[in-house]
Amino acid sequence: MKKAVVLYSGGLDSTTCLAIARAEGFEPFAMSFAYGQRHQAELAAARKHAREVGAADHMLVEIDLRKIGGSALTSGIEVPKEGVGSDIPVTYVPARNTIFLSFALGWAEVLGCFDIFIGVNALDYSGYPDCRPEYIAAFEILANLATKAAVEGAGKYRIHTPLIHLTKAEIIRRGLALGVDYGKTHSCYDPTPEGLACGRCDSCRLRLKGFAEAGVKDPVRYVVRCDE
Amino acid sequence: MKKAVVLYSGGLDSTTCLAIARAEGFEPFAMSFAYGQRHQAELAAARKHAREVGAADHMLVEIDLRKIGGSALTSGIEVPKEGVGSDIPVTYVPARNTIFLSFALGWAEVLGCFDIFIGVNALDYSGYPDCRPEYIAAFEILANLATKAAVEGAGKYRIHTPLIHLTKAEIIRRGLALGVDYGKTHSCYDPTPEGLACGRCDSCRLRLKGFAEAGVKDPVRYVVRCDE
Repeated sequence: MKKAVVLYSGGLDSTTCLAIARAEGFEPFAMSFAYGQRHQAELAAARKHAREVGAADHMLVEIDLRKIGGSALTSGIEVPKEGVGSDIPVTYVPARNTIFLSFALGWAEVLGCFDIFIGVNALDYSGYPDCRPEYIAAFEILANLATKAAVEGAGKYRIHTPLIHLTKAEIIRRGLALGVDYGKTHSCYDPTPEGLACGRCDSCRLRLKGFAEAGVKDPVRYVVRCDE
Repeated sequence: MKKAVVLYSGGLDSTTCLAIARAEGFEPFAMSFAYGQRHQAELAAARKHAREVGAADHMLVEIDLRKIGGSALTSGIEVPKEGVGSDIPVTYVPARNTIFLSFALGWAEVLGCFDIFIGVNALDYSGYPDCRPEYIAAFEILANLATKAAVEGAGKYRIHTPLIHLTKAEIIRRGLALGVDYGKTHSCYDPTPEGLACGRCDSCRLRLKGFAEAGVKDPVRYVVRCDE
């Protein structure tokens, strides 16, 4: 089996992405980030479930993006609950996917592998610039210029984005077909201290809409559900 | 004055780069990384001297690249002392500049500035792939796709590399002309516990060669000097 680094937040998308990497014949090395996010429940899910959802190994990287701030996820700015808008929302974290992919690239090089999976999605998403196909293509070019392994011709890095053109409902159907237990995922940006999803942030709304469209009940527990 | 983020290790190149940013009319926001490097003396110099060399602010980012490893600077691999070779040496740290530039990009976006300085050099250097002009050009393209500020048209990110085509001697002359005190810089990869430079690693050799060619005495203290 070829190794692959899979960015794994413990959420719906990255867990499905990991299952797809496995289904495509890769041995997934899951990488998560404690970046000072307010939704630590996401991280708890990642820690608890990485092996159960099929990761061969799990690395937790600690970086404190609160020092940089500039996002509702890493500073005192409130998480919006009114519904998904058309602008890039305040939950955008400056350079987050660039930072995550950089660490993934470093780990991939040390593991001697050339495949990196990231569960970005450009359809049912919040409009983050670092989830778009053109961004991913630019990172792939960068990766192949940045590294000793690529420059010396040992291989060519590929950034896999199996979810990028899927709707949330299609992602869920794909995951269920691969046996993903969505009870072991967490998506909410602003969960209760007990880890219950708020049901009203963009992430909960997109998730619930996806389950509704897929015709499946979301196994996760919510405080309130925007669809009820 | 326009703000700029300057990657600042406390070494000769980045200190000169910071002085150049100032001379070009930027207010430098210095960013250093405690990444688990064996040469902590570098970091001590950065901490101590950032303001003295002209930084308006100094952020120290803590990331532990020892978890990823794969380099003589972050793992048990020995630092070579035999002289600068033609291959990419074991002091190469996988994805290091990509990680550093990603954090710099995040900070720049929060500061509302579009200029990032990095003291990479493609002449008297160790052959690291992430110091080459084509790598920097690719990161600049990425930065302008990755961020809310760029996508919304607030500005265009520029990665400044004022040292990239200079020899080490030219860098030193330029720095001296700008009043840089090289006694406040540290370059050695493998210093003694007291912070004395080894005088034999690639970084010391390139530095000493630069001072010799510039016809100036390096004010830093060495255990031994490869030029003596």
